[in-house]
Amino acid sequence: MAEDSQYTKTFKSTVNRLKDRADYDHETVQTFVNGAPVLHVSFVPKRTDDDPFPTILPMIGGFGSYTAPGSTESSSSALYLHGHISARLFKTSSASEKTPWEEDGLPGLPVCVCATHMDGLVLALTPFKHDVNYRSTVVHGYATLVTDLAEKNFALRLIPENILPNRWENSRVPPTDAEIKVTGILKIDVVDASAKVRAYAVENDKADLVDVDVTGRVWTGTVRAYVRYETPIPGKENAVKDIPKYIDRWIEERNRKGEEYAREITSQLHS
Amino acid sequence: MAEDSQYTKTFKSTVNRLKDRADYDHETVQTFVNGAPVLHVSFVPKRTDDDPFPTILPMIGGFGSYTAPGSTESSSSALYLHGHISARLFKTSSASEKTPWEEDGLPGLPVCVCATHMDGLVLALTPFKHDVNYRSTVVHGYATLVTDLAEKNFALRLIPENILPNRWENSRVPPTDAEIKVTGILKIDVVDASAKVRAYAVENDKADLVDVDVTGRVWTGTVRAYVRYETPIPGKENAVKDIPKYIDRWIEERNRKGEEYAREITSQLHS
Repeated sequence: MAEDSQYTKTFKSTVNRLKDRADYDHETVQTFVNGAPVLHVSFVPKRTDDDPFPTILPMIGGFGSYTAPGSTESSSSALYLHGHISARLFKTSSASEKTPWEEDGLPGLPVCVCATHMDGLVLALTPFKHDVNYRSTVVHGYATLVTDLAEKNFALRLIPENILPNRWENSRVPPTDAEIKVTGILKIDVVDASAKVRAYAVENDKADLVDVDVTGRVWTGTVRAYVRYETPIPGKENAVKDIPKYIDRWIEERNRKGEEYAREITSQLHS
Repeated sequence: MAEDSQYTKTFKSTVNRLKDRADYDHETVQTFVNGAPVLHVSFVPKRTDDDPFPTILPMIGGFGSYTAPGSTESSSSALYLHGHISARLFKTSSASEKTPWEEDGLPGLPVCVCATHMDGLVLALTPFKHDVNYRSTVVHGYATLVTDLAEKNFALRLIPENILPNRWENSRVPPTDAEIKVTGILKIDVVDASAKVRAYAVENDKADLVDVDVTGRVWTGTVRAYVRYETPIPGKENAVKDIPKYIDRWIEERNRKGEEYAREITSQLHS
């Protein structure tokens, strides 16, 4: 990862198309990832002639800078993932056996993590100028299983807190030893990352705009979209009368931000 | 692809964890893919020591069975994608040069396509039983660039129609030759596919349920979520007075289905 506030541009992170939409800023990348309720994680399970396919798992996760106990310095921000990718890929049948990436001399499993926010549909006069408004980021890095207990505890709290802030201390914690043991945490050391944003109004072709038959019958504009969270529904086993304020406030804020962003990008001039 | 209505179970499509959530039914897989506003497409751009990473692109697409002109038989359902994956991967510098997958003797670029619908958060008494409700499908197959003009025209209509039905005939069509030429369509011949669904209410640990300190202070239940489409906003260049009925109806239906599904899964008993 670069020392400054920009992710290193490598061949892959250099967005070849639509360069004006690309952004390598750490904050943009991390905001898109942390704000996504689901991340898509891609890796190549086993490259054989029979099975040459990469695969994708939906996972949850978020960026965090870990400070070891007794240390005053945080490590650079890494992407922590919660999930069971480990079951298939990180276990070898014996301690002396190497993982495929160790055999290749790599520091971890090469992965790609993608976070996408779909912000609406852009309906132009012709289908060929239709588009989707979105914010998206692609991160490449090496995944390893977190084995250090203090770092694992850091990530076990980081990931759910990233989804619903204040939930951790308002639920049954600390985790039991068994809970910590069965939960797999992956750490992605970022090699490169980039973000792309499409946030404009409609862009129509000149030829269509001067054709009154077309403009007279084809509606053109945007249909905004966002992930809407609904009023929480208590489970059958719930014994707390009111929905806690931190949950209500979070839902309200998520919905307000979703609505606002969708509104803002539609009111912008197109470039 | 299997001849019957189930996708072949191979190693990778056999969902190792949570087998009860897995489904290989064609209809389930195709419904999840066709209903997703954005698909995540993973591939390995170039496997070198410097760059061992798979990558992911957000793309749009949908399943369709193509019938060639003059033929009475449709080909088996393939997944068509609209996008610019082609620019980087499908062009070789000369006609005699082979693509990397041709050199490997493969019928196309090995890809993975993932469609995910995030349906809500499941808040248990302890963070370790928290979960996300979702519907997700993973498709593995070989991607090739569609070069047959009739098949390309079929897919050029299929993909936007899948996103917003009736838009095609209500916009400026047919496409110009230039539009067809610059638009890349990928066809994925499916090798295997599976779907996973997490659609339950909360599952709490017995130890937490008998702890009145925990049940007395921790709220437990679900926060439903769905992609909400807002009232369309006319573009500056729009000249059609009213928002067309097919757009209004589609938004209403999408939102109603999103709300209904979120409500239904919460009212279910947990297994």
